[in-house]
Amino acid sequence: MSRRSSSRKSEPVRVLRTAALLLLLLAAACAAPDPSAVEPAAPVSAEPRARLDWALAIHGGAGVISKDEYEPVKEEYIASLTAALRLGAALLEEGGTSLDAVERVVTLLEDDPRFNAGKGAVFNHEGHNELDASIMSGDTRRCGAVAAVRTVKNPIVLARKVMEESKHVLLVSDGAERFAADHGVERVDLEYFRTERRWKEWMEKRAQAEAAESAPMGTEGVVALDRHGNLAAGTSTGGLTGKAAGRVGDSAVIGAGTYADDRTCAVSGTGKGEEFIRFSVAYRIAALMEHRGMSVGQAAEEVVKNVLQPGDGGVIALDRDGNVAMVFNTPGMFRGAADSRGRSEVAIWE
Amino acid sequence: MSRRSSSRKSEPVRVLRTAALLLLLLAAACAAPDPSAVEPAAPVSAEPRARLDWALAIHGGAGVISKDEYEPVKEEYIASLTAALRLGAALLEEGGTSLDAVERVVTLLEDDPRFNAGKGAVFNHEGHNELDASIMSGDTRRCGAVAAVRTVKNPIVLARKVMEESKHVLLVSDGAERFAADHGVERVDLEYFRTERRWKEWMEKRAQAEAAESAPMGTEGVVALDRHGNLAAGTSTGGLTGKAAGRVGDSAVIGAGTYADDRTCAVSGTGKGEEFIRFSVAYRIAALMEHRGMSVGQAAEEVVKNVLQPGDGGVIALDRDGNVAMVFNTPGMFRGAADSRGRSEVAIWE
Repeated sequence: MSRRSSSRKSEPVRVLRTAALLLLLLAAACAAPDPSAVEPAAPVSAEPRARLDWALAIHGGAGVISKDEYEPVKEEYIASLTAALRLGAALLEEGGTSLDAVERVVTLLEDDPRFNAGKGAVFNHEGHNELDASIMSGDTRRCGAVAAVRTVKNPIVLARKVMEESKHVLLVSDGAERFAADHGVERVDLEYFRTERRWKEWMEKRAQAEAAESAPMGTEGVVALDRHGNLAAGTSTGGLTGKAAGRVGDSAVIGAGTYADDRTCAVSGTGKGEEFIRFSVAYRIAALMEHRGMSVGQAAEEVVKNVLQPGDGGVIALDRDGNVAMVFNTPGMFRGAADSRGRSEVAIWE
Repeated sequence: MSRRSSSRKSEPVRVLRTAALLLLLLAAACAAPDPSAVEPAAPVSAEPRARLDWALAIHGGAGVISKDEYEPVKEEYIASLTAALRLGAALLEEGGTSLDAVERVVTLLEDDPRFNAGKGAVFNHEGHNELDASIMSGDTRRCGAVAAVRTVKNPIVLARKVMEESKHVLLVSDGAERFAADHGVERVDLEYFRTERRWKEWMEKRAQAEAAESAPMGTEGVVALDRHGNLAAGTSTGGLTGKAAGRVGDSAVIGAGTYADDRTCAVSGTGKGEEFIRFSVAYRIAALMEHRGMSVGQAAEEVVKNVLQPGDGGVIALDRDGNVAMVFNTPGMFRGAADSRGRSEVAIWE
């Protein structure tokens, strides 16, 4: 009886001990986060692959990209994007920095009249071209930006000069032009930016009763991860056709259109710049990775699909392991990605 | 025997059921956050008081604020800050919106030559005044900003016009001036901004071998919560003495120097604008509240003390319950706070 009694007691005790241990383990595993903790949550990657040696993504603008208009010239755009990817891939493959890759690839796209930046920039309400660009390095979070410049051939080159040779982050308008002149950055006549296509676009807009600004395709951006493990991002644009003089969009705003932090990701956005500024889109993606443990894909998806509105635009984002997200809420986004494992792809529509 | 046996079996079963229930409850209570969840974590307030009817905080710049220089004129500054607080308090007490309170109080401080914004703005490298300002409403996150304007008496008024009467968020330089002219915003001669004190400051800077820009006291900002439960924030500045022409700081950058979201907080910053842009300081504070459940005080403290460097500056921040944080990593910050419970205080040093 004593034995049976002991047995009757000991069994629930064992069960209780086991249950208590389970409770403790579970409690430890899922303790509520300490609000004063400053360390970022470890990013949960959706793709638990080993880190790539290098990776690169580019965009050439998001929007409606009407098939009527773009199907006949699709191959040209694919060729442009492919050339840009190849340049970046070659630089990164031979050990170049992500910052150099971003600057050089954005420059190539600025010189390409197919995209709305540099040579192919759209016209503002007053019939001028005003260009915005920014660049950021994920290692130290150094950054530089320029806005509303009119005579600078490659605004991304000037943005990098601002980052490296001034104490400032953002220079605009005449002051930015003078900084360009003082620092040997190539300038061009106003006529350089006058491409027939963009001029026609502007004349058509102007002829409409509602001569409002509109968002043409073509803001461009690049994100890169180099062999040294550093991320960088850059964005360049001519803005909106018919925009007000002096209007600056997200492409010149660090945290909105461009962001890079080696601990999380590099981001470049394209779309309705006002919305990207309002919601600090680029940094918001990094913050979701840092604070919520989202993967770069989850974070980009969350911001583009649930914070922005349909039609607002898209982003490219790249994490420190080389995972790429290219997300948009428009019918299309000119885009491409390449990496050290041989990935190389470009796309326009879904 | 069968009964005993049954009893022996039923006891562990009950224990197990209880343990399982406890496990389930605990698991439910402390489930790991779903990375795809979009709802912000409920803010954990350090001060669990009921919501105030209205609240207001202001700053007039952070920095060294040398006692030698400011002790003799301390009372003047305190009088200016007190007058600004009283104006805001009166507007909010009678049911005015936080947006109106922010605009009106910033305007008062812009007109006060003691602060580096509007009338008291500092001179840039070329001996001109270039002004930046921004405003944001926490309800819809509408926002407006202007930068590098030279003839606009009250840049905060222009920022609000940009928010309400343009499709854009940020207008700079000549384009912003023309927008001011088209929208009846008061403009003044360049001479209006030429106060003896700031001119002397600039001449002294220029005389030094290292005629670098420096951060004078006086950027100003206001955050307000109104009786309708809406938050708003605004910031205005003349920037850095001797800054490059066209340099834009955080005061014109939504997410950096100014941010407002009714779900989290309203923030206005002051200090080294480049650092505030680099780290998206204003939105970063809101993100810590949203994602980490920090109180407004914890979030402001975390960003000012652990993200920024000592000497970079400070912020005022206000949550939807009326809790105020005024945090700086400089020896002083001109500041004040008032609320519907009768709080009314101004301070300069620690």
